Amino acid sequence: MNITDTVQDLVKKSGIQDGLCLCNAMHISASVFINDNEPGLHHDYEQWLEKLSPHAPISQYRHNETGEDNADAHLKRQIMGREVVVAITEGKLDFGPWEQIFYGEFDGRRRKRVMVKIIGE
Amino acid sequence: MNITDTVQDLVKKSGIQDGLCLCNAMHISASVFINDNEPGLHHDYEQWLEKLSPHAPISQYRHNETGEDNADAHLKRQIMGREVVVAITEGKLDFGPWEQIFYGEFDGRRRKRVMVKIIGE
Amino acid sequence: MNITDTVQDLVKKSGIQDGLCLCNAMHISASVFINDNEPGLHHDYEQWLEKLSPHAPISQYRHNETGEDNADAHLKRQIMGREVVVAITEGKLDFGPWEQIFYGEFDGRRRKRVMVKIIGE
Repeated sequence: MNITDTVQDLVKKSGIQDGLCLCNAMHISASVFINDNEPGLHHDYEQWLEKLSPHAPISQYRHNETGEDNADAHLKRQIMGREVVVAITEGKLDFGPWEQIFYGEFDGRRRKRVMVKIIGE
Repeated sequence: MNITDTVQDLVKKSGIQDGLCLCNAMHISASVFINDNEPGLHHDYEQWLEKLSPHAPISQYRHNETGEDNADAHLKRQIMGREVVVAITEGKLDFGPWEQIFYGEFDGRRRKRVMVKIIGE
Repeated sequence: MNITDTVQDLVKKSGIQDGLCLCNAMHISASVFINDNEPGLHHDYEQWLEKLSPHAPISQYRHNETGEDNADAHLKRQIMGREVVVAITEGKLDFGPWEQIFYGEFDGRRRKRVMVKIIGE
């Protein structure tokens, strides 16, 4: 889910011209990450993460003995990361040419929430 | 090792009401990361990291030719990350429902040290 | 590519004594990361990343159907991370004993650019 415009709007509303913007998933089976806005790549991420940390068999993870079945989502999130910190210059997210911010959910059972914190002057 | 309370205490002592808290491992074979406070999951992380970057045979890593045997720890740390940046709101770490901060050591031969830097107002 | 001295120079020029330094790759197939300044280890990273996300066959990645052949570079960058945030204390990068900042390019076809943003007082 591309959240770049939402974050950019929040930066604009904050009035901050020069500073840092922290953007993190509030859920521990999810990630906020920066990469290309290209659906094929997002498909590749899903396939690749499933290869590195397969969902099934769920019995392979001790976390799932607690009654959960989402241990793999906690692993996938560590690869993709929890947060990004983006520079703010002249009131805007100071990005490289293809940088876009995404929210990735690897479990899917929770309502999506992202923390955006903007500091500067 | 759960360091959430220690970091929270430092935020309180700083008097900062609104800002950012950087928390990073000072050792390059260790991580500071945010995830669930559930021992089964931590066991799963260890197993999974060992699968993705096995310790043995130590001869598979060129770094170990320097006399070290911890090349795998430097790899594991990249998956888990070096640092977290957490928002501070109303004088507290502004967490999602299950977020807790952990220090993970993948080598184990050094004294544990974590940097906590708090900025804001 | 070790960029520690360049970043340290920018911190010095900024005059900031106490704050945070964000340092991120501006390209989405590249990373800025902190680890050991040891060439053997850097070789190990390359081998390991190639094992976890092989370049070939390029047809295994849907992203490459767009005419690119660098899907693997976008995956490798997620493992190594986009950015680091480093504490600044007394006008210097506040590092652990072996911490050094590196730029890692996994595609190699673009001009290297890194964002350095320094805030504080």
